[in-house]
Order: sequence, then C-alpha cells, then structure tokens
Amino acid sequence: MANLLGGKGAGLAEMTRMELPVPPGFTITTEACRAYLEHGREPDRLADEITREWDRFETEVHKRFGADRPLLVAVRSGAEISMPGMMDTVLNVGLGDEAVLRLAEWSGDERFAWDAYSRFVRSFGETVLRLPEQLFQEAETRVCDAFGAGRKNVLDAAQLKVLTSAYQEVVNAETGEGIPGDPRRQLDLAVRAVFDSWNGERARAYRRREDISEDLGTAVNVCLMVFGNLGPDSGTGVAFTRDPATGAPGAYGDYLQRAVGEDIVAGIRNTVPLAELERLDPASYARLRANLRALEAHYRDMCDIEFTVERGTLWMLQTRIGERGAEATFRIASDLVDEGVITPDEALGRGTGERLARLLFPRFAESGTDRPAARGVAASPGAAVGQIVFDSRKAVERREDGRHVVLVRPQTRPEDLPGMLASVGLLTTSGGKTSHAAVVARGLGIPCVCGADQLDLDVEGGVLTLPDGTRLRDGDFVSLDGSTGDVYAGRIPLVPSPVARDFVAPAPESGQSPAQQDAETVHDEAVRDEAVVRAVRRALDWADGHRRLRVRANADTPDEAVQARRLGAEGIGLCRTEHMFLGDRQPIVERLILAETPAERGTALAELLTVQREDFRGILRAMDGLPVVVRLLDPPLHEFLPDLTELSVRHATGDYRGEDRHHLQRVLDAVRRTHEQNPMLGLRGVRLGLTVPGLYANQVRALAEAAAGLKAEGLDPRPEIMVPLVGDVSELRLVKQEAEQVLAEVRLATGTAVDCPVGTMIELPRAALTAGDLAAEAAFFSFGTNDLTQTTWGFSRDDVEGSFFPAYLEHKIFAVSPFQTIDPAVGSLITTALAGGRAARPGLETGVCGEHGGDPESIRFFDRARLDYVSCSPFRVPVARLEAGRAVVEGAVVEGA
Amino acid sequence: MANLLGGKGAGLAEMTRMELPVPPGFTITTEACRAYLEHGREPDRLADEITREWDRFETEVHKRFGADRPLLVAVRSGAEISMPGMMDTVLNVGLGDEAVLRLAEWSGDERFAWDAYSRFVRSFGETVLRLPEQLFQEAETRVCDAFGAGRKNVLDAAQLKVLTSAYQEVVNAETGEGIPGDPRRQLDLAVRAVFDSWNGERARAYRRREDISEDLGTAVNVCLMVFGNLGPDSGTGVAFTRDPATGAPGAYGDYLQRAVGEDIVAGIRNTVPLAELERLDPASYARLRANLRALEAHYRDMCDIEFTVERGTLWMLQTRIGERGAEATFRIASDLVDEGVITPDEALGRGTGERLARLLFPRFAESGTDRPAARGVAASPGAAVGQIVFDSRKAVERREDGRHVVLVRPQTRPEDLPGMLASVGLLTTSGGKTSHAAVVARGLGIPCVCGADQLDLDVEGGVLTLPDGTRLRDGDFVSLDGSTGDVYAGRIPLVPSPVARDFVAPAPESGQSPAQQDAETVHDEAVRDEAVVRAVRRALDWADGHRRLRVRANADTPDEAVQARRLGAEGIGLCRTEHMFLGDRQPIVERLILAETPAERGTALAELLTVQREDFRGILRAMDGLPVVVRLLDPPLHEFLPDLTELSVRHATGDYRGEDRHHLQRVLDAVRRTHEQNPMLGLRGVRLGLTVPGLYANQVRALAEAAAGLKAEGLDPRPEIMVPLVGDVSELRLVKQEAEQVLAEVRLATGTAVDCPVGTMIELPRAALTAGDLAAEAAFFSFGTNDLTQTTWGFSRDDVEGSFFPAYLEHKIFAVSPFQTIDPAVGSLITTALAGGRAARPGLETGVCGEHGGDPESIRFFDRARLDYVSCSPFRVPVARLEAGRAVVEGAVVEGA
Repeated sequence: MANLLGGKGAGLAEMTRMELPVPPGFTITTEACRAYLEHGREPDRLADEITREWDRFETEVHKRFGADRPLLVAVRSGAEISMPGMMDTVLNVGLGDEAVLRLAEWSGDERFAWDAYSRFVRSFGETVLRLPEQLFQEAETRVCDAFGAGRKNVLDAAQLKVLTSAYQEVVNAETGEGIPGDPRRQLDLAVRAVFDSWNGERARAYRRREDISEDLGTAVNVCLMVFGNLGPDSGTGVAFTRDPATGAPGAYGDYLQRAVGEDIVAGIRNTVPLAELERLDPASYARLRANLRALEAHYRDMCDIEFTVERGTLWMLQTRIGERGAEATFRIASDLVDEGVITPDEALGRGTGERLARLLFPRFAESGTDRPAARGVAASPGAAVGQIVFDSRKAVERREDGRHVVLVRPQTRPEDLPGMLASVGLLTTSGGKTSHAAVVARGLGIPCVCGADQLDLDVEGGVLTLPDGTRLRDGDFVSLDGSTGDVYAGRIPLVPSPVARDFVAPAPESGQSPAQQDAETVHDEAVRDEAVVRAVRRALDWADGHRRLRVRANADTPDEAVQARRLGAEGIGLCRTEHMFLGDRQPIVERLILAETPAERGTALAELLTVQREDFRGILRAMDGLPVVVRLLDPPLHEFLPDLTELSVRHATGDYRGEDRHHLQRVLDAVRRTHEQNPMLGLRGVRLGLTVPGLYANQVRALAEAAAGLKAEGLDPRPEIMVPLVGDVSELRLVKQEAEQVLAEVRLATGTAVDCPVGTMIELPRAALTAGDLAAEAAFFSFGTNDLTQTTWGFSRDDVEGSFFPAYLEHKIFAVSPFQTIDPAVGSLITTALAGGRAARPGLETGVCGEHGGDPESIRFFDRARLDYVSCSPFRVPVARLEAGRAVVEGAVVEGA
Repeated sequence: MANLLGGKGAGLAEMTRMELPVPPGFTITTEACRAYLEHGREPDRLADEITREWDRFETEVHKRFGADRPLLVAVRSGAEISMPGMMDTVLNVGLGDEAVLRLAEWSGDERFAWDAYSRFVRSFGETVLRLPEQLFQEAETRVCDAFGAGRKNVLDAAQLKVLTSAYQEVVNAETGEGIPGDPRRQLDLAVRAVFDSWNGERARAYRRREDISEDLGTAVNVCLMVFGNLGPDSGTGVAFTRDPATGAPGAYGDYLQRAVGEDIVAGIRNTVPLAELERLDPASYARLRANLRALEAHYRDMCDIEFTVERGTLWMLQTRIGERGAEATFRIASDLVDEGVITPDEALGRGTGERLARLLFPRFAESGTDRPAARGVAASPGAAVGQIVFDSRKAVERREDGRHVVLVRPQTRPEDLPGMLASVGLLTTSGGKTSHAAVVARGLGIPCVCGADQLDLDVEGGVLTLPDGTRLRDGDFVSLDGSTGDVYAGRIPLVPSPVARDFVAPAPESGQSPAQQDAETVHDEAVRDEAVVRAVRRALDWADGHRRLRVRANADTPDEAVQARRLGAEGIGLCRTEHMFLGDRQPIVERLILAETPAERGTALAELLTVQREDFRGILRAMDGLPVVVRLLDPPLHEFLPDLTELSVRHATGDYRGEDRHHLQRVLDAVRRTHEQNPMLGLRGVRLGLTVPGLYANQVRALAEAAAGLKAEGLDPRPEIMVPLVGDVSELRLVKQEAEQVLAEVRLATGTAVDCPVGTMIELPRAALTAGDLAAEAAFFSFGTNDLTQTTWGFSRDDVEGSFFPAYLEHKIFAVSPFQTIDPAVGSLITTALAGGRAARPGLETGVCGEHGGDPESIRFFDRARLDYVSCSPFRVPVARLEAGRAVVEGAVVEGA
C-alpha cells in the first residue's frame, strides 16, 4: 500500500482500519503525483476526486465534531520511502479572513487564531507561492519594531493581526492578488506545491545520496488540523513502542505541552520524557500505551508514532516501523520471539550482519558524540581513542611505553604492519574500504577510518590539520569511529562491547529472560548487556541451525587463530604467510634477497624455516582438529624492501641513518632489480615459487614439520597447502610435485605421516576459465575474489578507490564498490569455474577467501552457488555466520514464493 | 613412413622405390627402438628379423657386386625429425682381422684397408663399448711418436696396422675380450649403441631445445659401405636441387674428391663447388643431375641430398626436403607453380609470414656475418648499423647532424619516442618481444634487439661492455640484426630489401619469368631481386584472393598511414592518440595536468585541439575512403610526466637543470598526485575520459573538425571512435553521449555531417563477459588482445618478460609467450564476447588491434572465429595478408580431410 499512499498515508490508513483515533482526512496517491510530474499538470480526474473526498471529509468532520469546528487541514507529503524534512508541508489550509474569526470563536483563544493565521499566510506565501522568505522577514521585523517587540512570540492577538496584514501586503504586492479565499482553491495550490517539492533541490540531493528512485513521486496527506497548542491540556509528542537504543520493552519518547509538531522539530523548547505524560494526563497516557501495544501487535515490530493531545483528546498522527540501533535490533527481535509475536526465522531476518558487526566493538558513550571534526570511510568498525603518531616505528615505541596510539598515515604499506599492530586505531587520508589499511585493520579487528581527505596531513612536519583549522600534533589525542567514519579531536569516553566479551568468556545463561522483567524501570547496564548478549547468541544459534556455508577465518598468527575460533570459525580458510616475513623477520628476508652465495641464501632460509615452523605450530594448535589452509608466499619480494623513491633520495643525499654506505647501496641495487612497473601484475604468487629456488619448499617443510610435531603430541593438525595466483595447471603441478617431495622427506625424517592436501586459489580469469584442468590437480578451490575482481575489471584496489571510484559511484557505473559486493561478471566467472571444477572432480571442496567472504550480499551469492565455505577476518566470522543463516532463510522464502 | 623408418630411412626407401642407385641395406624401425628403450632390451623378434634382413642383404650384395666385395655396413641413426649429429653412427661394421685382408684385396689398397680398420676399432671401442676416448688417444700418440709421425694421417699401411693393434690392445685391456669377430654380433652391438644414443646427453639437450618428443625413438639404417676415398675417381658431396639461399634453379652443392662424408663434416679439406664434378666426372655429374630432377619431381619441392662416387659409380646416400632461406622460400614456390609442379594454393602453404617479414628489411651481406658478440631477443626484424647513443635527446641531435644512430637503453619508455624515431635501430638490455621498445619498434619498422642481458650497460658512465670485455662508448659503431637477435661490434655491410622497395615504388612486371632463363649462370643481383619481388607479389596476390580477414594497420601519424596504405592496409584499425601528446606536445599536456584554473586548462585544451586536428587531417587524408579507428586517450596521465624516483632525486639534490625551482616543485607535486602503484590497473582508458573534464570531448572535436574539413574538400574521410578499457556498458554510454553531443555541435558549426560510429575495445575480461550489454551501444568491437592477455593471466608484459617468462618457457608452462600467440583461455573469452555481441547486434563489426593481429597462429584463430579484420603494425600488414590467405587455404584442407 505504501507505494501508492506513501509511508505516512499507509500508516494513517492502517490506523484508521484499526479504529485508532486518527483525524479525518484523505490521501492523494503517488500515482497522481507521477502523472503531474510527467505531464506538468494535474491529471484531469484529480480535481473531481479531490472534490468528492473533500465533501466526504466535510461531512465526516461535521458529524464527528459539529459544524462549529473550522475545516482546517494539514497538507503533508509522504513518499514511499521516508525522506524526512525534504519536502514541503502546508498547515492550516482553509484559513482566511472569515475563517480566522470562526477559529477564534471555536477555540476561545483569539491570540491562538491570529497566530495560526499569520503563520499560514507566511507559510503559504513562501511555500506555495514561492515568494522570497526575506520579504516576510522584513515585514515581520517592521511590525515587531513598531510594537517594540524583540520577536513575534511576544505579540498579542491585535498585534498578530497587524502582522498578518503585513504578510498579506507582501503577498498582494508580489502576486497582484491575495491568497485565494476559497479553501478548496487553497488546497489545490498546496497539493501542487507538495508535488513540486518532490523535485526540489534538497529532495533531489537526498534521493541521490540515499539511492532512491527519481520516479516514485510523493503522496499527499490531507488531514484535519488538530491542535496541541490550545492550552495545558494539549500537547504533542513522539513515541516508540520500545527503547530504540537498547530495545528494552516499554514506551519511550518525548512530549511537549502546549505545542505543535513543528515546535518539537524546531527544538525551541525542551521536551520531557514520555513518562511525564502519565502525570500530566493519565487518561491520554493510558490510551497512548494501549494504542502503542495495538500497533506493535499489528505490525509485529517496534513502531514509532507521532501524536497530539487536543484538549485531552489523543490523536494519532503518524506511525511506522521504528528505526533502531544495532543493540535494539537484536534485543527486540529476540524479545518478540519470546513474546510469541514472531518466529525465530523472522527474527533472523531482522538483524543484519552489519548491525551485528557494530556490536562487536567498543562504542562511544552516547553523551560524548558531538559533531565530528571530519568524516572518512568507515573502514573497520569500532571506536578508538589514542594519541596521534605519524610513523610506524614510533607507534611501536609508544606502545611499549604503555600508551594507546592511533597511527595516522596518508596510506599504509605492508612494512607498516608492526606499527598497525601496536595501534588501537588507524586513520588514513587516502584509500577506501579495500585499501591496505582497511583490509589489514578488519583482519586485526582494529577500528579504522580511511580516506579522510578533508584532513590535511603533513607527515614530515608532524601536523594533522582539521577542516576547522585545528592543528593536531604527535601525542595529541584523537577519537575515531570506524563504524561511521567519524573523526574527533580529543578524547571521547568509550563503552566496551559486552558481545565481544561474551565470545571471549561466555557468561552463564541467566534463568530468566530480560524481557520477563519490568524493563521500563530497569536502567542497570549489566542487565542491558546481558540482554543484548543473549539476543546475539540466539540470533547466531538460529543462523547456525540454518546455514549451509561453513565459516572459516583469515588468520595469520596464533593469536588471530585463537580469536577466530572463539568467534566461531570452523577452521582457517586463509593463512597469509607474508606476515611471517615482516616485522622482526624482515631483516632475514632482506638477507635472503641480498644473498650472493648459496651459503648465504641457505642460512637465511634456515632461519626462516625455524620461525615459520613456530608460527605454524601455534596456528595449528589453536585450530586443532580443524582445517588450516596455508597460502604459500604471494606478494612480490620488493614488498619486503624499502620504497624505491625514498631509498633513492636517501642514497642521493647521503642520508644513511646509521647504516653503512655499502649496505645501503646493496639494498638499493636489490630494490632496483626487483622494482616493477605494476607489482600486482608481476613476479608474485606461484611465479615466485617457480623462480626463487627453495622458497616454497621451505614453507612446506616448516608446515609439515610443525604438523608432524603436533601429531606426535597426540593432537590432530589439519594443514592444507594453497598455491596462489595460479593461471595454468602446470604451475600447480610443479608446485605440488615439489610439495609432495618435501612432505615425503618430512614423513621419512619424523616417522609421522601428515595428510596435507594441495589446492589452488582461483583468482585469475584464466584460472576460472581453465578450472576443469586445475581440478585434475587441485584438492580444493579457494576463490580469491579480491584479485579476481581486480583482473576481471582491470583495476587495482590500491589505485582506483581514491581516483575514479567516487566518479563511478556518482555516475552509477556501479552502485557499490565491486571490492565490497561481488560483481555479477566476477560471479559469472565463479560459476564457470565451479561448473568446470566439479565436472572434473565431483565433490571438489570450494570456498572463498577474499574480502567478499564477509559481505552479506556476496554471502547470498556464495550460498546459492553452493560453495562449501566462506573465509573472512576473525571479527567478521559472527557476521558471516549470521548472514549465511539469513541467506538460507531468505532463499527459502524466495523459493517458496 | 618417416615416423616408422625415420627421415633418413624413409628417404632411402623412397629412392629405392624410384630405382635410384641406393646401396643395399635395411632399416630397423623406430618401433623396435621404442620397445628397446621401454623394456631395456631388444624385443624378442628383433634378432630374427635382423637375421632375415641380413641374409637378404648378403644375397643382394653378392648378386649385385659379386662375392669378393667385403660385407661392410654403415650403421646410422635416423629419427623422424632430423637431429643432425646428435646420435651415434658406426661405420665399417663387419671388419675384423680377416675382413681387413679381403678389403685390402678387393680395393687393391692396403693402406686404405688398414686405415678403415684402425678407425673402426677405435670407433667401435668408443661408441659401442663406451671406452674413454683418452685411452685411444694415448695409444695413437705412442704409435705416432714411435714412428716419428706428427699425426696418424701420414702413417703408411704397416704403421696403421701397428696403430690398429694398439687400439685393439686398449679394447682387450678394458673389456677383457676384443671386438667380436662375428659381423652379425658387431651389428647387434652397433644397433644397440645407436638405440642408446637416443638418450645421450647431447640428444636430450637438443630435443629439449627443439621441443621434440622424448617418446619418438630413432630408426637404425644398416647400409652397405660405399667408399668415396678409393682414389681420384671417388669422392663425396652434398647437393641441393635449387640454390637454398636465393632459390635460383639448378644444382648447387659441394664436392670433395677422395673423401668420405665425415671428412666434409669435419671441414679438414676445402670442398669445391658442385659444378666442378662435371669437369672431374661428367658421367657421374649427368647421372646426379638426372637424379636431382627426378627427386624434385617426386617430392614436388627442392631437395637436398648426400651422395658418394665410388670408382666412377654414383651412390645416393640420403635425401630430404631441403632447408632454405626466406628469399628462396618464395622464389622456389613461385617457380614451381610456373613449372606446373605445384598449384598456387600449395605455393601459398610454403611461404610463411615470418619468412616474408625478413624480406621486408635490409639484411647483412652474407660475407660479413661473423660470430655475434651477443644475442638478445629478435624483437623487430631487419639489420641496422649505427653509432651508439645512450640517451633519447642525443639521438635526436645526432640524427639532425645526419648521423645514423642506434639507441641503446636498459629499456624504453613512452618519453623515449622522439629518440626512437631518430634511430636506425634499438638495443635494450632488458624486456622481451612485447616490451615497449619491441612493440614501438615493430610499429615503426625499426630493427630492434631486446633484452640482450649478456651486455653490461652503464648508462651514466656511457659504457656498453660486451661479453668478451670490449667496451663500446657513445659514438662507437654497433650492428644488430632484429631478425635473429644478433649484436655485433663495428660496422657490417648492409644489403637493402628489394621487396620493401617494391612496396614503395613497384617495378613494372617483366615479360619473362626469371625461371625461364638459364638461372644457373645468372648471378646478376638485379635479376635475383626481380625474381624475389615477383615471387612475393604473387604470394600476396594468391593470399589476397583467398583471405576472409581484412587487414588494417595500427598507425598513429600521417607518415605511418601513408606507409601502411602502401603495404596494403585496408584502413587503420588502431590510431593511438597518445602519440599526439608526446614529443613537442608534451609541454602542452604538462600544462594541462598542472592547470590550476579553468582558464589555464582551457588554453591547454585549445592548443591540443589544434595540433590533434592537424594530425587527424593528415591521417584521414592518407586513408581517404578507408576506415580510421581512433582510440581515445588510453595511458595514465603520469606517462606524460617525468619519472617519480628520478624527479625526487633531482628535487632532493637541487638538480634543477635550468628549470626554476618552483616549476620543478609543481611538476613533482603533480607526479606524486598522479603516481600509481599499478598504473596498468589505474586511472587510464575510459576512466580518464569520465574523470578529466573535456579531455575526450576535445579529441572527438579535433577528429570531427578534421573530417568535416576534408569532406568539404570533396574527400571521403571515414573516422570511427573507439573507447578504450571499457568494463561496463554505462561507461561506453556516457562517452558515446558526450561524443554524439560534440559531433552534433561540429555538424552545426561546419554545416557538414560526418558519420562517425562509436565502438569499444574489448580488452578486459569483464567486457568480454558482458559483451551482450556492450553491443547494445557499440557499433563495433575491437579486441585489445594485449591487455586482455594481461588481465586474463594477471601479468603485465612490462614486468614479466624479463623476470619469470624465461623460467615459464623452460618449464613449458607455455610453449610461446601468450603476448605473441593468442592464449587458448584468452581465445575462449574472445569467443564468448563474439557470441554475446553478435546475439545482441547481428552483423556487429569485429576486429583485433593487439600485437596478435600480426601473429600467424593467432591469425588462424581470428579467421576461424570469423572476425572481420585484424590490425597490426604497418610492416606486419603484408605478413598478415599472407597469413590470412594461408589460414583459409589450410582451413579448407583441414575441413576437406
């Protein structure tokens, strides 16, 4: 119904059917608006229909209220999708020189009547007749000055009458005629004004931002004016059927005595909590509570409403399903199941993974959130507060001093990893949701705001300048919210996440559900926390009960593995070994690259063997009994060396920084030698394995020895080897042969046989297109959807998000970054690969380990494609579990439909 | 037959059937060899068969030669595919202490007999019994010393007898027994030795290099020994039925009196031209000529043979289709058609495009070609001689001074273009066949050797060091052959290409075909040139008569367009506009990028408009009446700016080079701003068009104005607009809308309507996968197979050819670079795109404009896929014409089979 009547009109119609006290009125459909917008004039039959409705309305009002009540109406917009405040409203339509006298008589309040009339004339002039606001403002100032009044609120009835005349003169002077006296003519003009406001500048900008179709049009609600400003027994308010922040049951809202709706919006006077209405007007309050209960029962969900009390009579002006925060989403869904209102499947449909993600991280205390100083891309959820540091090395030092630091960089590189690990939050001034900083931050569960390009960052000068000119320096505090992209100067208090705590140390189930308590009076944080923890647990249980997709984690260290398992990971789908080559291991890798003799090379490899073996032991131990897919080294070698330009400048300027000149020269030579125009398309992945002797064998040996050791201890390690960037089956075959050779050697040396399947990434179009060949050698496929997206589209996420992606989103070339949600063409390559692979190897295990593994919409695609698992950052594991369950339930609904 | 009997055995069998004088013998099949190699011993029935053949052989020899001739045989290898000198041969099998006496008696030459016996013992010992060569050498030295002889050639019969005994002692001492006396036992051992030599080190290395299967095995030819060293009426030689260098008719070859075949191979004595045989032994010569004619008639092609004259009797020892040079290939095929031996279709099958390509460029005079100093990748055909220059700017200066220069660089960049244009040859020390230098060189028709990594290049020091230590400096001469990859120090004389001259100014057809003259006596270069020119013309005519594919050129300048048209281009398939932004236009582009105000930007765009319009006028004029597909700007903007590292170092060290500091800083800022991690995957192609305001509109306007101007002059310009790097139809739609807007404006302003279809490149997997959508907007598809290969495989040709491609070719992950011959997976994307595009737009025009457009094997694929045209470098146009015709003829043969 909402598509024809608009959201507001549908709510009013629904409440009317429920026999709730709704002021009489009628709704002009969006269809009429669309016809008007298309042809530039009202459709022919509209006038007849309005006449018919108006007659019916007049009859009803007179029947219900008696003939002395003036026929004044509010004319309000109401689109299918709410666009709050973006279109026009005209109140008190029907007022005129005569009607104002009747209004004064009916209300017994002359000042009220003239106040209404003066407002009407000005509003009609500005909104309907499109006269400049400034002219009315000047008239108002003249009148107020004449009466020695500072503002019009202090004018009395007679003075307001003068003001009304002054306004009318503006209208007369500008239009050559006054506001039409005929209420019906007023109404027609007001309706047209609302229609026109669909294409107003504000509305168009809003629709662009919110991606609302231009073609919908708005409905127009015509409704008897009821007045909340007739005296102490009148007022107006908004109410929710449950707490929209926490989800706790009971009515919540705000009330303002002696006021109309616009006064609440204007915020001129302070509202009181809804509970006050019980004291002020117990009868209205009781009726309101009953109505709220009826609405929630009817809509089977939390509702929000607007209402007015007119001289002790309650009027319901609007209702809709209420907006709510992440916490309330899960709490309400869970409580409605307990209350028998909805089924667990319906509850599962209501809480998205994105909302769950927000609950896994600390949040800012509500009181603290002022206007942010800047806003960037919400790249990794959670709030963080710390001291600014502009350099990874310093981040590590400060962390060792026990300080909380936020690393601020133009963008991050793999060599920044130690600094990132030492930080409580990351802030970059360029790059988007899939930039290095964002991906790593999500992997580590560190809040991150990316691409905050309103900030001016001078790394060398050590100054971060905010848009308002504030200059922050090293050591100054900054607060950021990675769920919203907001950045604040200074410290904002943080509230820890009870849900995250629960994954680490689950609280015992409480015997009584929080919904059974009288929550209206409970403000205890502990109870609130317990409620949300229970709600999230239940949502995940429901999802786990449904889902077909297994969920694994992308985890590179023992710590991450432990964390991933706590968050419900059913194995590791991607263990990136490059992280074992960074940090304190970087010098070993540098020695490996600089090695000039087989002996030097052998020594470096032996050192790497030892450290990798320890890493693998820790990871396999944490994932005992679950699969751990280890990806052999993927990134180009120069990622383990300094930047060419920086090093060239240091070399040219003699800036050795304590290193000896000869060493710097050797490193520079190596950097030049390994430098590539397009590293993403260069010597990396399996290509490294086939050209750097011993590299992959070394990794396989470390893994096999680690697994053999654990098996000897009685554990059940389940390592798997994944070969990256394979384009042709012969690449895979060569690596597999080498790996099997090493596995056999380790078996012989340790006397322990470790089963270790070898599979392949599918991350190049060529791999997808030749999947049938690959499956002959590969024990499993893992779709690397980041790289597959890069090569299918021919753009690299490092390079494009800051450059042309904004324009592309603006041009609607894509609605959402293809690095976030799987692109259909990439999807078709996945489908092709699955068909080829399964034909060649029935029962082939298939999974996804790109960023898309944690994206709800992509998860739906992977579920439909019947992949075996998705793998994502540890902190996305609960999100993926939830969405994988939701995908099945939604799929069943779609299939059932 | 060759697969069973080997090449040599098949030739012998063929000659036997033709009743040519072949010494009696028999052939042991490759099948027997394969069985031996597989099971490690001779197959059971082999002994029986050899016995049967041997008996037959003995009977025949006695019948034909009488019983006094000793039964000595040559045991020679003979694989299906010739592996000259890679396997073992044992001569004089059958000799022994008794047989040597009969040989002396039969020949009447005791020294000859003992010489043969001594050679046999040593050869049997080394080759069959695998005894160390050194032992025999020591024995020989002892004997020579004892007789005071410097070398064994001067020993007399008695002394050779002593030498034979000394050799026999070595065999006895090492094996405990002598060489078996039984000829049959000798034969068995010799056959086994030849079988074993299939797996010898040399043979295996050769097969790896030539990509010959390990499984074929060799046949063994057993053949009565005939002796060319019995006196002045004996000798041995090789002959061709036509000149293998020029293709001129008549017998060519070399003859050596009193010699056996190995003497010719050993090169100890100088051979004489075959014509000398006529003087020495007119009867044998006449028989040989008759045999050669018979062979050519039988094989319907030029043959080469080995023969021996034994005391005035001619014996044919071997024949096969003869190897020949590029010139001879076309000349022979053309002459054979004239002679009624083969059809034009067959002739077309014999001359490949690769051979034609070599004829389009100057070559080194034959006398001059010593051993090259180094060898790189044969990147662009033709020979070049010039003075070394290490810097593009200097190349331009020198050229202006009238000097021929060869630009020597580690690798080239787009900014090197002016220097490349000024050079007669290019030499780089890194990069492969599809590196920037190679691609540009082929486009310009400049000889180029790439990736000559044995050379040590010190650009700053201005020294190029050859592998032998020679140091070449700026101004020194170097010669290079881009058809072979050879690099020489100094000047080698050049011979210009008559074929290339003919395209520029065709000679009138001569009335008489050169074949009708007595070519044997004609050595006139002019006649030779005329013959090859005529042969190439005919081959192209035949090809043009068959081919389905049209051939267009990739041409960026008016000069190139003129040249392309002369070479037979039927339009321009790719006009790269980036070349209009380089050279003296680079400062304008720099101003455009640095522009800080709309006015600055507008001025730069206006300047670009003027120069582009002139370029387009020239190109459209040269291609009057033919389509000219103009690709809108493709490369990332920073390609028009200096290199980041170089500029950063200059900035840090205050090296302003006459520019002012402020300007350098601005350029550096722009370079930093536009710097990308992976430019190939960054802001380029249509993405530029959608983000740099006015850029594409400016190009379209220049093109439309140029076309309108020419049309007003009465010409028939046919411009088409091609949008690069499209991944989604909405990108194409936006550019097309903008282009059509500009076209309409130009039509209005000039009053001339120019039809200018807008099409798209298909160079991303996503474009191929969504081709159906694209075809709704695109008037044509042009497959950019370079980029499509890059993204399908996920490697960039700039980065990988020097790094892992050698290893990949070695590992046989691909047999040939996928940048050279279209990869099957890329081909499948093309097929997908064609199906999608044609379904959406029947009759869609399709072409190819990548490097693959000039590659023979790829052309076969494009022909089968029924593309409308290929487009390639101007100098590849004749190659593509030829191969497109050959593809149709070959396809017909395949389909007919």
